[in-house]
Amino acid sequence: MPEAAPRRGRPRDAARDRALLEATLAVLAESGYGGLTTAAVAARAGVSTATLYRRWSSKETLVIAAAAARAEDLVKRPDTGTLEGDLRALLRDKAASLTGESGRLMRALVGEAAHNDALAEALATTFLAPVRSRVEEVVARAAARGDIPPVDDTGILGDLVAGPVMSHFLITPQAPDEVDPETAMAWADRLLPFVLRALGSG
Amino acid sequence: MPEAAPRRGRPRDAARDRALLEATLAVLAESGYGGLTTAAVAARAGVSTATLYRRWSSKETLVIAAAAARAEDLVKRPDTGTLEGDLRALLRDKAASLTGESGRLMRALVGEAAHNDALAEALATTFLAPVRSRVEEVVARAAARGDIPPVDDTGILGDLVAGPVMSHFLITPQAPDEVDPETAMAWADRLLPFVLRALGSG
Repeated sequence: MPEAAPRRGRPRDAARDRALLEATLAVLAESGYGGLTTAAVAARAGVSTATLYRRWSSKETLVIAAAAARAEDLVKRPDTGTLEGDLRALLRDKAASLTGESGRLMRALVGEAAHNDALAEALATTFLAPVRSRVEEVVARAAARGDIPPVDDTGILGDLVAGPVMSHFLITPQAPDEVDPETAMAWADRLLPFVLRALGSG
Repeated sequence: MPEAAPRRGRPRDAARDRALLEATLAVLAESGYGGLTTAAVAARAGVSTATLYRRWSSKETLVIAAAAARAEDLVKRPDTGTLEGDLRALLRDKAASLTGESGRLMRALVGEAAHNDALAEALATTFLAPVRSRVEEVVARAAARGDIPPVDDTGILGDLVAGPVMSHFLITPQAPDEVDPETAMAWADRLLPFVLRALGSG
């Protein structure tokens, strides 16, 4: 994807890119993937479609870039010093990120990805891979400290830890904006003791 | 939903209903929810649309009925006598059911449910609730046998056990027909020891 390479020579370009990505997220939240047009995004960001297309050559690359930017915003990597603390932060972050506007975005993308392979691939790369690697880091640190036995099958850890959260908040009848972040985090706290035991702790 | 009530006075009606539901699943698999028309389903089942509408008054109630019939087909409830045996069967069934045609169906419905509340509700009732109750049964039996300590927070069990499977097979870039049931069941077996430990066993 050469069109996704940054061409950010000037601060004005970076600010304009950011405005376009924010506009993309806003239009996605309002209209869904199917209803999003590059014209609507350009209008919302106050630029011409020609300007948009100089930076992103298609609706798909634009949406993927917006999702990637959002995912980067959401993935923090605190090191609390304990497995329990790290996992609590991770589960709470993930649950909270699947409510509100980012929750609506994820639902729209998961829905579209069901019949759009390129988007499914981007979803895996921008949303799932960072969560997976964060889980693996947290578990590896705990094993290095001797808090838990080493895990041989690290490839399953992302699904084990983040899977219940994603399944609960993405495949349920409840709309993401009906769940407030506090409720989502309280749900994550209920999951925590089970996940700790699964990893050989607690 | 009064139109969903069975009116199966004669065996011929039951056979025709079954044919319509099978036709619905086939058209869903080919065209997705957005592309499905009641006319296409009626034509495939060899009946008039008037006949279809006498039984199901809308596309939505038809698809929901088809999904419910499929879910009933898939949910078996073996009692192997051990928590490990019961969970292995449950995880393997669930993983296998998310490959092939039923996997395509689930993806299509999850995708559509992202912006269709009635369908999201039906998905929860027909697909998620039976899995959830099966998990709860299996865990309750194990606790009753004294194999594991009693679980206070049973409301989380469905997400804990089935969530990783659903997340792995429904929110991934891999198309359901690229995964054969054997591969899916082997993946389920990798998850099993973690889930057993989470429940206080093994």
